Amino acid sequence: MSLIKVSARSRTASVAGAIAGVMREAGRAEVQAIGAGAVNQAVKAIAIAKGYLAEEDVHIICVPVFVEVLIDDQERTAIRFLVEPR
Amino acid sequence: MSLIKVSARSRTASVAGAIAGVMREAGRAEVQAIGAGAVNQAVKAIAIAKGYLAEEDVHIICVPVFVEVLIDDQERTAIRFLVEPR
Repeated sequence: MSLIKVSARSRTASVAGAIAGVMREAGRAEVQAIGAGAVNQAVKAIAIAKGYLAEEDVHIICVPVFVEVLIDDQERTAIRFLVEPR
Repeated sequence: MSLIKVSARSRTASVAGAIAGVMREAGRAEVQAIGAGAVNQAVKAIAIAKGYLAEEDVHIICVPVFVEVLIDDQERTAIRFLVEPR
C-alpha cells in the first residue's frame, strides 16, 4: 500500500483526494507527517477526506502512531496515521 | 463530558493522562486544538494515551472534525478529535 507523505506545504484538498482514492482502492491508507506543520495539514486532510467518503457511506477513523524514520541518515520521529473504515 | 483543550504549550504526557482518565470514566473523550502547534501536541498526546490504554486492553481510535469556536468574539476554526474505543 502506498504511504501518503504530507509536508507543511502540502495542500489539504490534494492530500484529502489522495486519501479518499487510496481508501477506495485499498480499503485503508497510511498518512505520514514529520513536524507540527505537516501533522496539522495531515489532520485537516483526514477531516476533509472523511467528508468526501461519508458521501459514499464510508466512515473513516484514524489511529496515530509514532514511527522512527531515517531522513538524510538522521533518525526522525514521524507521526503515521492509520486510516481505516469504522 | 469535559472537553480537553490543548495548546501548543501543553505537555503531551499531561494531556495523554487526561485523555486516558476521561476514557476510563466516560468511555469517550473530546480533544480540541487550534493552530498547528496545538494540533501536533494533541495528536502526540492521543498516540501516547493509546499506549496507556492498550495496556488495559482498550484500543482507541480518533475522528478529527472541524468546529467553529468563538474566542474573544472572533470565530476560529478548531480541530476537535473524537476519541473512542475501537
